[in-house]
Order: sequence, then C-alpha cells, then structure tokens
Amino acid sequence: MTLSMYEASAPCFVSMLRSLDSILGKAQAHAAAKKIEPSVLLTARLFPDMFTFVRQVQIASDHAKGAVGRLAGVELPKYEDNEQTFEEVRARVAKTIAFIESVKAGQINGSEDREITLKVGGKDMTFKGLPYLVSFALPNFYFHLVTAYNILRHNGVEIGKRDYLAMPGNKT
Amino acid sequence: MTLSMYEASAPCFVSMLRSLDSILGKAQAHAAAKKIEPSVLLTARLFPDMFTFVRQVQIASDHAKGAVGRLAGVELPKYEDNEQTFEEVRARVAKTIAFIESVKAGQINGSEDREITLKVGGKDMTFKGLPYLVSFALPNFYFHLVTAYNILRHNGVEIGKRDYLAMPGNKT
Repeated sequence: MTLSMYEASAPCFVSMLRSLDSILGKAQAHAAAKKIEPSVLLTARLFPDMFTFVRQVQIASDHAKGAVGRLAGVELPKYEDNEQTFEEVRARVAKTIAFIESVKAGQINGSEDREITLKVGGKDMTFKGLPYLVSFALPNFYFHLVTAYNILRHNGVEIGKRDYLAMPGNKT
Repeated sequence: MTLSMYEASAPCFVSMLRSLDSILGKAQAHAAAKKIEPSVLLTARLFPDMFTFVRQVQIASDHAKGAVGRLAGVELPKYEDNEQTFEEVRARVAKTIAFIESVKAGQINGSEDREITLKVGGKDMTFKGLPYLVSFALPNFYFHLVTAYNILRHNGVEIGKRDYLAMPGNKT
C-alpha cells in the first residue's frame, strides 16, 4: 500500500464522519433518556463567542466535502446550513459521506500540485493540493469535529475516545 | 511535490506544535494579566472524568513523537510526564519538536507497510505504517491538541482559530 492523496483524505473523512454519526446517535438517545430538549445540546457552545454544536458539525462537513471535491476537481454540493434537529444533522453527515464516496480514488490521486483557491476569512487563498490537504483541510476538519465532540462531552453525553476513533482507546 | 509519509507527518506535527507553543504563551500571559494561578488553567478539564489540560498536551506530544519515531524506526525519547508549570509544558513541546526535527525525511519515507506494534488500552495493537499514521496517530494527535485548545478557550483565554492554524481563519 502506498500513501496517496486519496488514502490521506477520502477514507479518513468517511471513517471520522461515521464516528460522528454514531456520536450523534448517542447524543440523541441521551437527550431522549434525560428529557433534555434536543436544541439545548444542538445550540450548546464552550464559550459565548464560539460556534454552536450544529455549526461545528456543519463546518466539519464543509471541510470534508470541500477537500475531497476540490482535490478531485468536481463541483461541491451546496448545503443550506439550516439543520435544527438531530435527524437533520445526521442527514447532513450522511449526505457528506455519500458525496465523498461518490468520488473515486483516481480523481483525487495526483492532485498534489493542483491549484486550489478558496475564500478564507473573506479573502481568496490559493494553495497547492498537498499543503491544502495536510496543512489546511485536515487540521480544520479535526478542529471542528473534536470541538463538536467536546461540546457534547462537556454537557455530560456519555461518549469516549472509542466513539471518536472507533477502535479500542483510552478515555479522554 | 509528492505526498509522502514524511510530508504527511513530521512537518504537520511540527507546525501544529509550534501553534500549541504560541497558544501556551498566550495562556501564560493571560494567567499573569488576570492574576489567575497558572495551575488552575493547567489542571482544568471540560468534564470531571476527562483529562486535564496538561495531560492533553502530554498525550498530543506522545502521539507526535510516537508517530515520527515509529515510522522512522528509531527509539522514542521517554518523557517523565511530570510537567506542572507553563514553562515545563512549553519545554515538553519544545523537546518534542526537537526530536521530530532530528528525524530525516528519508527515515520516514517508504514506511507505508512498516509493521508497528504499540500498546492501546493495555493491549498490543499492530498496524501497518500508513493506517497507523492516517487512522490512528493523526486523529489521536488532533483529538488531544484540540481538546487542550478547547479547555483554554472555555476558560476565557483569548485565542482563536488563527492561533491554532497560524494562518488567517474564522473564529471558532
């Protein structure tokens, strides 16, 4: 097996998004069992000027689909960012996974030097494919994914690293 | 430029660890300015059964040095995990960076199929180099790095995504 732009991107995003879906399922069950209004968890933040849980998931989804679509040179699906329930958030994760899985390895491989331009903080930024993936898309994806996890964990949802990583792991 | 095991590991860890050092500097300055006992931040957690800030940094450091050392097939430096001050935590980050920078690209490249065995949750787990890096070491590293960031952010330290990513970015 050789490391390729595909191996370093699509399957990793899909695996982590599947974990996120399982974590969302646990949060949904926790809210039902504890009679917590789901919107309390969905709009929770770790600090007043941080994004809500739902926004963290939306941005993680955007970085995953953005990376795969841009590296492959295909049009990115547009999502409305209007999710308000666990069902809608899980549907967002599911369609992100479906989009990533629609892209084939051959479309992504060889994209190391592909020129990629995107808006960051309102300004156009141009990257080559390789630094875009390893120094921008992956750190951003993990940033919002882990922050989403931490918001739930901080609110008492019983999840642990084995939900995040889907393999035997230590507690957080 | 071609994606290689080196490009996907060592420079990414170093870049994120440099950001972590800068975040640690801001936390240290924040504690001094607000007359907060540094140990309050260093031992903070997001939930009672989660690890403290210092432990999150130690584990992020371990995953970074572990990945680079194991992929290169060199002996891992042992750290005592006894950091108790900002100075000591920053020294831990600095020696992790120095170790990673002591490893050359040629030692890591070609390690896709290298067999790597490590203890996970008390049990031996064996990986090939490629899945070890992209499906274990990187997600674990980011998990503890972002959780460390979130602990500080939750405690009011004025940091943002541009500190984490060291490039223009949006707020968290």
